[in-house]
Amino acid sequence: MNTRRLKPIEHRDDSKAGIDLSGLEGQVGYLLRRAQLAVFDDFSVALKALNLRPGQFAVLNLIGRNAGITQNEVCAVLGIQRANLVTVLDELERRGVAERRPSATDRRANTLHLTIAGVRLLTRALDAQAAHEGAIESRLGKAERDRLLKILRHLTGD
Amino acid sequence: MNTRRLKPIEHRDDSKAGIDLSGLEGQVGYLLRRAQLAVFDDFSVALKALNLRPGQFAVLNLIGRNAGITQNEVCAVLGIQRANLVTVLDELERRGVAERRPSATDRRANTLHLTIAGVRLLTRALDAQAAHEGAIESRLGKAERDRLLKILRHLTGD
Repeated sequence: MNTRRLKPIEHRDDSKAGIDLSGLEGQVGYLLRRAQLAVFDDFSVALKALNLRPGQFAVLNLIGRNAGITQNEVCAVLGIQRANLVTVLDELERRGVAERRPSATDRRANTLHLTIAGVRLLTRALDAQAAHEGAIESRLGKAERDRLLKILRHLTGD
Repeated sequence: MNTRRLKPIEHRDDSKAGIDLSGLEGQVGYLLRRAQLAVFDDFSVALKALNLRPGQFAVLNLIGRNAGITQNEVCAVLGIQRANLVTVLDELERRGVAERRPSATDRRANTLHLTIAGVRLLTRALDAQAAHEGAIESRLGKAERDRLLKILRHLTGD
C-alpha cells in the first residue's frame, strides 16, 4: 500500500476563536459532515492528477465492476439524482472512458460500459484510492479505522 | 431525553442485489457519506414540523448562541458558500426569525441576530435535535456513540 500521508485537515473556521459552537460540536450529524467533507477533500486531491472527482470515480468504479449496469441501478446504489448521473456520464463519454449502449431487453434503458481507456483510468484511480485509504489508516491506525467502519455500518442499519 | 426511535435506514439501493460494490463498501469515504446522508435524512424528518432544514437549523443555532456574529464568520464555521448563506438568511428574515443589522465597526459587514420569534423557534428546534440525537444513541448505545465522535474528531485532526 502506498504511504501517502493524510494532510492535517485544516479547520474551515480560522475565525472561530471565541465562537460558541454548542449545538454543533458533540452532534453526530455535524461531526459526520465535517469528517465526510475532509475525507472527500483528501480524496479529491488524490484523484486530481487523473482529472477525476470522487463522484466520477464512484460511477466509473461501479460500471467497471458491473458491465451492463443500468443508469437506474447506478442512481439507486449511489443515492444520486438522475440529472447528476447524466452530467457525469456525458463527461465520461466525452473523455472516451465510458459508453452508453441500448439495452437488449428494455428499449427505454441504456446499459453502461467502460472502454479500454476507461479500464486503464479505473486501474490508476484505484491506486490513488488505495493511497488515500492508506493515509486515513495511517492517521487512525487499523483498529480504529475498522471500528469506525463497523459503527458507520451499524448506524446505517447494515 | 426524548425517546424518538431512529427509523431503520433504508438502503437507497433496493436493486443492488447482485451488484458488485467492491471499491465502495469498505471505503471510509463511501460509508461516511452514506451515514451522513442517513443522519441528515433523519434530522430532516425531526425538523419537518418546524418547517426547518438541517442547514437552516445550523445557521439559526449559531446566530442564537453568538448574537452579532458576521456572515463571514458563519460561512467559515459551517464551511458553506456565501451565496448559500444568503439564501438561508433571506428565508430566515422572511419568516421573521432572524435579522441582519449593519455592523458598527465595518460598514461592509452585517451582524446577525435572532428575533424573539427566532429564539422561540430555536428552542423548539433544539428539542427536535435532542430527540434526533437520542434516536442515534438508542441505536448505537452511548459507548459506541462516544467512540464514533472521538474517532471522527481524530479523523479531522481535532
